[in-house]
Amino acid sequence: MRIDEKLTRLRELMNENSFSAYIIPTDDFHSSEYVGDYFKAREYMSGFTGSAGTLVVLQDKAALWTDGRYFLQAARQLQGSTIELMRSGQPDVPKIEEYLEKNLGEKTVIGFDGRTVTKRFVETIGDKTDAKQISFDGSKDLVDVIWTDRPPLSKKPVWELHVKYAGKSREDKIKEVRAKMQEEKADQLLVTALDEIAWLFNLRGGDIAHTPVFLSYLLLTKEQITLFAHEEIFPVQILERLTQEGVTIKPYEEIGQAVGNMPAGTKVWLDSGTVNYRLTQKVPKDVEILDQESPIVLMKAVKTPEEMRHMRAAHIKDGVAVTRFIHWLKTNVDRETVTEVGAAGKLEMLRSQMEGYLEPSFSSIIAYGPHGAIVHYAPTQESDVEMKAKSFCLADVGGHYQEGTTDITRTIALGDLTEEEKRYYTTVLRGNLALGAAKFVEGVSGQNLDVLARGPLWELGMDYNHGTGHGVGYILGVHEGPQRIHWRVAPGAKSIPLEEGMIVSDEPGLYLEGRFGIRLENLVLCRKGEKNDHGQFLYLEPLTMVPFDREAILPELMTEKELECLNRYHQRVYEALSPHLDEEEQGWLKEMTARIQ
Amino acid sequence: MRIDEKLTRLRELMNENSFSAYIIPTDDFHSSEYVGDYFKAREYMSGFTGSAGTLVVLQDKAALWTDGRYFLQAARQLQGSTIELMRSGQPDVPKIEEYLEKNLGEKTVIGFDGRTVTKRFVETIGDKTDAKQISFDGSKDLVDVIWTDRPPLSKKPVWELHVKYAGKSREDKIKEVRAKMQEEKADQLLVTALDEIAWLFNLRGGDIAHTPVFLSYLLLTKEQITLFAHEEIFPVQILERLTQEGVTIKPYEEIGQAVGNMPAGTKVWLDSGTVNYRLTQKVPKDVEILDQESPIVLMKAVKTPEEMRHMRAAHIKDGVAVTRFIHWLKTNVDRETVTEVGAAGKLEMLRSQMEGYLEPSFSSIIAYGPHGAIVHYAPTQESDVEMKAKSFCLADVGGHYQEGTTDITRTIALGDLTEEEKRYYTTVLRGNLALGAAKFVEGVSGQNLDVLARGPLWELGMDYNHGTGHGVGYILGVHEGPQRIHWRVAPGAKSIPLEEGMIVSDEPGLYLEGRFGIRLENLVLCRKGEKNDHGQFLYLEPLTMVPFDREAILPELMTEKELECLNRYHQRVYEALSPHLDEEEQGWLKEMTARIQ
Repeated sequence: MRIDEKLTRLRELMNENSFSAYIIPTDDFHSSEYVGDYFKAREYMSGFTGSAGTLVVLQDKAALWTDGRYFLQAARQLQGSTIELMRSGQPDVPKIEEYLEKNLGEKTVIGFDGRTVTKRFVETIGDKTDAKQISFDGSKDLVDVIWTDRPPLSKKPVWELHVKYAGKSREDKIKEVRAKMQEEKADQLLVTALDEIAWLFNLRGGDIAHTPVFLSYLLLTKEQITLFAHEEIFPVQILERLTQEGVTIKPYEEIGQAVGNMPAGTKVWLDSGTVNYRLTQKVPKDVEILDQESPIVLMKAVKTPEEMRHMRAAHIKDGVAVTRFIHWLKTNVDRETVTEVGAAGKLEMLRSQMEGYLEPSFSSIIAYGPHGAIVHYAPTQESDVEMKAKSFCLADVGGHYQEGTTDITRTIALGDLTEEEKRYYTTVLRGNLALGAAKFVEGVSGQNLDVLARGPLWELGMDYNHGTGHGVGYILGVHEGPQRIHWRVAPGAKSIPLEEGMIVSDEPGLYLEGRFGIRLENLVLCRKGEKNDHGQFLYLEPLTMVPFDREAILPELMTEKELECLNRYHQRVYEALSPHLDEEEQGWLKEMTARIQ
Repeated sequence: MRIDEKLTRLRELMNENSFSAYIIPTDDFHSSEYVGDYFKAREYMSGFTGSAGTLVVLQDKAALWTDGRYFLQAARQLQGSTIELMRSGQPDVPKIEEYLEKNLGEKTVIGFDGRTVTKRFVETIGDKTDAKQISFDGSKDLVDVIWTDRPPLSKKPVWELHVKYAGKSREDKIKEVRAKMQEEKADQLLVTALDEIAWLFNLRGGDIAHTPVFLSYLLLTKEQITLFAHEEIFPVQILERLTQEGVTIKPYEEIGQAVGNMPAGTKVWLDSGTVNYRLTQKVPKDVEILDQESPIVLMKAVKTPEEMRHMRAAHIKDGVAVTRFIHWLKTNVDRETVTEVGAAGKLEMLRSQMEGYLEPSFSSIIAYGPHGAIVHYAPTQESDVEMKAKSFCLADVGGHYQEGTTDITRTIALGDLTEEEKRYYTTVLRGNLALGAAKFVEGVSGQNLDVLARGPLWELGMDYNHGTGHGVGYILGVHEGPQRIHWRVAPGAKSIPLEEGMIVSDEPGLYLEGRFGIRLENLVLCRKGEKNDHGQFLYLEPLTMVPFDREAILPELMTEKELECLNRYHQRVYEALSPHLDEEEQGWLKEMTARIQ
């Protein structure tokens, strides 16, 4: 079916249900960033494949909101459809709620699948539309009617992450969560975020590509631990252990009923920013809601000493694979036909040679030339191009290993660069190095440090339209909170101080539409440094071990301190990787990491 | 009366009133930062003269809370008293509310003069003490009973700031404020902050030393403008003009009655963070309160083009006076007896030679050697020391001129310095220059930029226990909000983006107790720079025009860019000041501002 046929069909169904608008967000039932195939309703209805975006369909028009990472990709993918692209955050672009308020009449109804949006999302719209007495109906999944060949819900097997990797048993984790519940006098904790559940249970699954989680809900009380999931996904041994430890498994679909049956007079802790609308609507009126972030979010972000140790090991493995990839790419781009898709395949092959490699932690971005300017470009057979021995290849790639998760971006010079290309590369690199070298006092957040990465670009009157850094899960989502590096904090959100054990990415970039893109990303681990009269100092230890491209660097634009940072990092990379490389690769890496004066 | 006698007397009065605790804050009835002599109850009762601090007296003990600027000064001034010093924000130091909760029994009463605290302050305590059913009584000013020689309320004459300086008439300002009221559907606006009232009316007064405001309250409705103030402070011409413009003057003391008489069913806009507790208690139950920051705060912070232009002129005048002062001090410290108090007098004399000079904008800090480590030290006859031709003199001084207000800190080398002194001076200077050179996109706040000033110190494992920057009023308070430069934002406070027309100070420092202090402060004006696809850029224009001390600089610790910033600034200083200097001074300034390689 063509996109416009699907929209026509949807509008018929909207008519039947008296919906004046229908909202199709990206989310699954768990507010996941990436979703399983069953949940790709927005992609199915709009043709836009990005990981963030909301489609709003009215009777006479339709629009899709997405963020800066996807402006170029969405414009391309929506071309030829009747769906208007709304570039979120740009001047003169209305918010979804403003668009609805403007275009809908009084007392109309907005429909959506209430399992795919949060209560907070609905409230945000309501704040704007209430004056027109517009109401909501979250009970109908209209896309399901149109989408006859919809894939089934995923039920991939669950596996256990050994405590030697996790560093803390699920009993201990549950004990800590219950202590937090007690502090807040909460009788029940409702957790629906899949990575929180996987982290708490030291279990991993396969229900979302690149994010080893399993479809489930958790209801935790002082006495009971109830996991709502498809029972068949648990291997027998795991099921036995869970049962021994007092965990009850109930069918995935029964969560609504369980929420509806919460005992009167109790207090439930849930986060209306992640729990889906339909579930929050089921909380009985006589149950008090404590609406705040789940205690698991911060616990999960602060890695255990074992997780930190294993993360370092995973990054050396990944560093070997990515360094080999860069060596191969720079050597062969002029000798054989190398396309983006082909290069992505080569990298996957090199990674799979590393012991303990599991899968990519997100769709590899191998973007040549102008494709590099599309922030979250992922090559497809349709978009694929051959790379030549000039300009940049931007590779933003990551993997899950038995020991942890990686996420790295390198921008690779495939031949002689122009002075301009080198100048911009060096500027982005200066930002990356400045943030990576940050030393700061306890209490400081990523909001305070972002200027270090952006400063060199701001100085040139340039910027990038994405955050500088995100947290990274331990064999979970490659993007996780609550910490992040961005000067701006979303309204209502809190600035989260960096703590020892937190991992963040350090990834400034520069994108020149139609020309090229540059992004340089290391993961760094927040560590405690000296403590003295002035306070407890923290610093960032680099986890990523892959050289920057010396052929793209103009040392004369860098300060001595910046060069010193670069040389020190390169020396560290050489020491970490060389024992795992063959002689030729070693020789090459030695050259790539030699001191720059 | 000795401090302990005063406390004994207070405890008797507390007993008579059944108060288990009595709180004496620094505030006047208007939450002013500095207060008139009538209001110096905390100073009278404790002996501590700093501009911030709260005394809490119980039957068996007493404690005084103050912030990092005053730790050393308060420790010195409380020595020998029974008052315990509480260093706010330090580890293991309880907050006032925690102290009260811990030390008071159930159902006890906390007393205070309800005009000298805000509702928010009382609520913060209540959040902690409510569980013990502790109540508040804000109706008694017990200090007034003890303080028999209390100075009267100040009634200094009001003068008018010509619209050619203010850049906007009071009619226009009131119109803008009323438009904001309309947006918020507020029927009344209650303004009690003295600088807001002075700004709105383009009037200045003399009721607080260094802050040219007049004691008053404002009640603004759609139709009426009622100013509660002592009528005798208005010169006849001003009184006539105000009357012509529809302003009603009522007695200062009648504000409580006016608040109590607000019509039922109306909505009053007030900020419970500045309006005093007793006034907020008088708002009738059937009047809705819109509790948020007054619209005047942001309007006042964004200077008009006329204010910006005049501010530059004021800073050149002040630059001439301060530069002459530095020249004099460095030349004469070894030739004659120069004490801190004497030097402060000399500076005041030099300033008063400048046309349009009004008064200091705060008590001059002239701090020699170890005194420089006391962040808000002000020399007194008792503390005064003679300066020698070695170490640093820290001079943090400012003035009100007919054209605007200045605030500058220079740390002056009085003789040969040690390498360590130079290293630290250079480090602080690097922070000052980095922040001053910041270029950033619209939306960025001081919270995002603070790291630029602190970074060089953090790198050495050092820090300073005060904000990096504050707003500055236009012939009003030398400290004003809402913008500020600090990585930390107080809980509940908002991060305020910098806008064109805002002035902030740029004043990193370093304090080594018992040895010396370094602080380098320029005022900078936020300006719009280029606007392109990446956004609207902003930059900071230096207002302060006084050279840094080249004898304290180690150029080898600075990057080329930092040296370039310094040289460019010095060239600008020379060009601005030299036309106003005599030949000898010119020659000296030429040397002081010569290029450093």
